[in-house]
Amino acid sequence: MSHKSPISNLFFFIFLFCLITFSVAGKHRSRRPCRHLVFYFHDILFNGHNAKNATSAIVGAPAGGNLTTLAGQNHFGNVVVFDDPITLDNNLHSPPVGRAQGFYFYDKKEIFTAWLGFSFVFNSTEHRGSLNFAGADPLMNKTRDISVVGGTGDFFMARGIATLSTDSFEGEVYFRLRTDIKLYECW
Amino acid sequence: MSHKSPISNLFFFIFLFCLITFSVAGKHRSRRPCRHLVFYFHDILFNGHNAKNATSAIVGAPAGGNLTTLAGQNHFGNVVVFDDPITLDNNLHSPPVGRAQGFYFYDKKEIFTAWLGFSFVFNSTEHRGSLNFAGADPLMNKTRDISVVGGTGDFFMARGIATLSTDSFEGEVYFRLRTDIKLYECW
Amino acid sequence: MSHKSPISNLFFFIFLFCLITFSVAGKHRSRRPCRHLVFYFHDILFNGHNAKNATSAIVGAPAGGNLTTLAGQNHFGNVVVFDDPITLDNNLHSPPVGRAQGFYFYDKKEIFTAWLGFSFVFNSTEHRGSLNFAGADPLMNKTRDISVVGGTGDFFMARGIATLSTDSFEGEVYFRLRTDIKLYECW
Repeated sequence: MSHKSPISNLFFFIFLFCLITFSVAGKHRSRRPCRHLVFYFHDILFNGHNAKNATSAIVGAPAGGNLTTLAGQNHFGNVVVFDDPITLDNNLHSPPVGRAQGFYFYDKKEIFTAWLGFSFVFNSTEHRGSLNFAGADPLMNKTRDISVVGGTGDFFMARGIATLSTDSFEGEVYFRLRTDIKLYECW
Repeated sequence: MSHKSPISNLFFFIFLFCLITFSVAGKHRSRRPCRHLVFYFHDILFNGHNAKNATSAIVGAPAGGNLTTLAGQNHFGNVVVFDDPITLDNNLHSPPVGRAQGFYFYDKKEIFTAWLGFSFVFNSTEHRGSLNFAGADPLMNKTRDISVVGGTGDFFMARGIATLSTDSFEGEVYFRLRTDIKLYECW
Repeated sequence: MSHKSPISNLFFFIFLFCLITFSVAGKHRSRRPCRHLVFYFHDILFNGHNAKNATSAIVGAPAGGNLTTLAGQNHFGNVVVFDDPITLDNNLHSPPVGRAQGFYFYDKKEIFTAWLGFSFVFNSTEHRGSLNFAGADPLMNKTRDISVVGGTGDFFMARGIATLSTDSFEGEVYFRLRTDIKLYECW
């Protein structure tokens, strides 16, 4: 066999290559993001007097006898619909690159915690299309991971993880979320 | 080496093939749908008098002082739950192949725009199972893309894009959405 | 060619292997779960008197004139927000391994049927992270399939199907859902 050894080596190399290909494609997947983006979005809650500036409003609240019994406990059950500006930095007055549109609700009696379903709808020279998000937001934690469940346009069929952090808040009226988006499926 | 050239050529071909396999499986994905379906669904909003025919109802609205201040602005914050018939053509009275079940809410003060979370629950000889959808619906646009985030039964683990277009509407009571579904992940 | 047959055979084997690799990675996907988990979650609806024990509350209901006209029909339109304990067995008092947080609403006039959007937020020695779910829940059926649309932490980027079954219910106040989770995409 010794005179065939260059060919045998090459064979072995190809065989290994195929095995690696197979395992990469069929089983393991890369945890290195194929796309990384950071945005901020700004939520101004309607308080009855700021209809012009408000970007969100409470639309549901716990019913069943006394409306305030449960709602008084960390806003449990309050449902909020929002249409918030998205900016590239943490300045509310920066030119928005799109809108964060969706809803959240507070879902725990003991502490503040929320659940989010929303889209980033982009409308800028850099990005067109949308990203769709869903997940639990235990907002007392410094960072919270939610799922990027799909995308359209520039973000066709995207999947990934978005890490939320509360960049700032002012009482019950304003908060700003930093959104660190890592896509692991790009098309 | 010249006497080995047929083998070398074959080698080279296999090697190239593996490389292509690797890149296709690991990186690029086809933008050609593996399944294409078109349906219509029909929404009849409850107006207080049509309980028998209604397929949807407002279940939430902006709170905080004056309920009407924000709601007057393009229905901002109105949350609607629906159970709409799905048909194969644009006739409300065609035999339904399933039900579109979910919710939408209006989420912009300046223009009409909505956010949708719903399922197509099929129950026909042709299709069994469900498709689950989520995404922003800027309904003044002629077409809007939302995400197909999953499926069950005949649509096991499906992912894709659904393009919505308003096929017809009658005031505030009836609208019909054409839903052009392109699946890019089929199992 | 006869003197080259061992090499040719090997060639052929490698070629076949590549073809199989290609077809597995590019087209077909396994319907064998890469992970299988079973949990129970327990929902105690707020009835106006049980604020301490309640884990969920109605936050929306059909509006438009007479609030009761549609709501009387199988709770159509009732929106419920929940934060329910997750246990490994069917005992409400077992140590919870996490919380099921999200919302559901009843969406059919004729029979009981619901739509669910929620997360399993794990906090145990065995599991950290979250799973996100969405889908229709025709709850009069013995089993119902919904989509696992994403995950974080230990469930990074997961996708799959969850089969729900009503393990027990007590009138309008308590129900327990068995959740049989099969993941088909693991990272």
